[in-house]
Amino acid sequence: MTSILVLGAAGMVGRKLVDRLVETGHLRGKEISYLTLVDIVEPQPPKGATCPVVTKACDFSNEGEAEQLVASKPDVIFHLAAIVSGEAETDYDKGYRINLDGSRRLFEAVRMIGDGYCPRVVYTSSIAVFGAPFPDPIPDDFNLTPLTSYGTQKAMGEMLLSDLSRRGFMDGIGIRLPTIVVRPGKANLAASGFFSGIIREPLNGQEAILPVDDDVLHWMASPRAAVGFLMHSAEIDGETVGANRNMTMPGVAATVADEIDTLRKIGGEARVKLIRRVPNDAIKQIVSGWPRRFETSRAASLGYTADASFEAIVRTYIEDENISI
Amino acid sequence: MTSILVLGAAGMVGRKLVDRLVETGHLRGKEISYLTLVDIVEPQPPKGATCPVVTKACDFSNEGEAEQLVASKPDVIFHLAAIVSGEAETDYDKGYRINLDGSRRLFEAVRMIGDGYCPRVVYTSSIAVFGAPFPDPIPDDFNLTPLTSYGTQKAMGEMLLSDLSRRGFMDGIGIRLPTIVVRPGKANLAASGFFSGIIREPLNGQEAILPVDDDVLHWMASPRAAVGFLMHSAEIDGETVGANRNMTMPGVAATVADEIDTLRKIGGEARVKLIRRVPNDAIKQIVSGWPRRFETSRAASLGYTADASFEAIVRTYIEDENISI
Repeated sequence: MTSILVLGAAGMVGRKLVDRLVETGHLRGKEISYLTLVDIVEPQPPKGATCPVVTKACDFSNEGEAEQLVASKPDVIFHLAAIVSGEAETDYDKGYRINLDGSRRLFEAVRMIGDGYCPRVVYTSSIAVFGAPFPDPIPDDFNLTPLTSYGTQKAMGEMLLSDLSRRGFMDGIGIRLPTIVVRPGKANLAASGFFSGIIREPLNGQEAILPVDDDVLHWMASPRAAVGFLMHSAEIDGETVGANRNMTMPGVAATVADEIDTLRKIGGEARVKLIRRVPNDAIKQIVSGWPRRFETSRAASLGYTADASFEAIVRTYIEDENISI
Repeated sequence: MTSILVLGAAGMVGRKLVDRLVETGHLRGKEISYLTLVDIVEPQPPKGATCPVVTKACDFSNEGEAEQLVASKPDVIFHLAAIVSGEAETDYDKGYRINLDGSRRLFEAVRMIGDGYCPRVVYTSSIAVFGAPFPDPIPDDFNLTPLTSYGTQKAMGEMLLSDLSRRGFMDGIGIRLPTIVVRPGKANLAASGFFSGIIREPLNGQEAILPVDDDVLHWMASPRAAVGFLMHSAEIDGETVGANRNMTMPGVAATVADEIDTLRKIGGEARVKLIRRVPNDAIKQIVSGWPRRFETSRAASLGYTADASFEAIVRTYIEDENISI
């Protein structure tokens, strides 16, 4: 029997993770006995759960909240809660409070339980921990020089995760997610939103804004692949990961032009015509500092697998979201 | 006219920095008009100062202290205050409180002044931000994977320094100091203390303990070189440093055997006989995770210069500390 806590369970990836947990029913070779789902808004309970599910709305960065959340000693903690890149850049205080202080309070709450408690903590970091200039591709041992406050906060969380794991207070795995494409539903505040928007909106018969040039290359993964990374991160043996508990996840390197070609192939030229080019220097500036392509041999050696191609990413979106073309 | 705040002014490097500031009398092309010297114990006022000097004992990590320290808007802040590696490893809470929270409070206090205030902040980081396995030499763009809590705290401070500098709240320069050898005076709690001890104690006619093997290679700089790095860090143009405001300082790569050979050359075989080998597995373990040798082209291109050799390091010690051989 294993109990699970998911922070950020109402977010897009969080909801898909919870659905997968319920569908699978077990983790680390044990039946899932208890699911606690937390977010700033109360998460929807998943359909078809056979174990008890508790949902809770709270700001986990508030004093005392993290202690309450881990008091029942969950065996696995998925920490997906974060302020996204765009908002962390515009609201300096909120970004540091949630992304840095919140993560630290969570980790410290785990540590303070003591008594041999050492849960697997799966922490979602981001490729935003990297900043230009880059080699191409970026190797696993490249330094973290974030060019956003979001990337800085995620990188600091990675450092804490490794140190607390090294000291035996928890058994952490930090994964740097590629940009998640195609995000279903409404656009969020992330500056990377257009990578999804130029596929999602045209497939839904709506106009999409493209703020950058067609040759922008980016590192992407489908929501389904991201959930796969999270599940695999709960399963792997921490000992085999080494002292650096954080690593870049595999992805698909695709340009905006690749995206448009795929949209044309799957949806036809009429859909492509729904993309409206509105160059935005602020977004161009942010994107120019982002990494493009990685060499992810650490993740590969630990068994993480990416989407097969950008076309596969779009077909996964159509399948998982029941989009009619 | 320029005003200066030194945190950690009672430490060995801090005292030498203050002496150099008083001796030089100017910084960044301006006369030094005011010196504020702070440490957990009240720093000694320097001899020969021609400007007002204020000395203060305080724990800068306590709430409200950092705000008071920067309220007068010093033009240059040297932040040398830290819990050393050995103590940060044995006292988890104290290490995070001083090295991480203290640094953050200082940087935040600077930010909160606002009103265009953007001082040069010189932050002493450490090569302990790096952890094995390493390439040899370690390049400037190698990732930070500290294997101690001290290294983790220093690396997190580096991240903050870069982010606050990028956002225009301060003009930070973070320098990763090599291990400082030969430290004068008493041994401190750093696990690296023996690198100095096996020179200092025999030159003073006393026995020294050597806990590691003779082939251990390490990256070192004299206190005089370290003060030179700090002074140069106050002078350089932040724009030329780029978005990553932290870099590894040049040093001398020497083995314990190199150290002993130099001791023999300068002090004779009788001095070498004062080194007593007492293998210590705990120290060996810590040292095995430390970096050995760097390729420091970023620092070189910005004009930082190292000691000429390990022999030069020892001769600097003899000269600066008036040691009679």
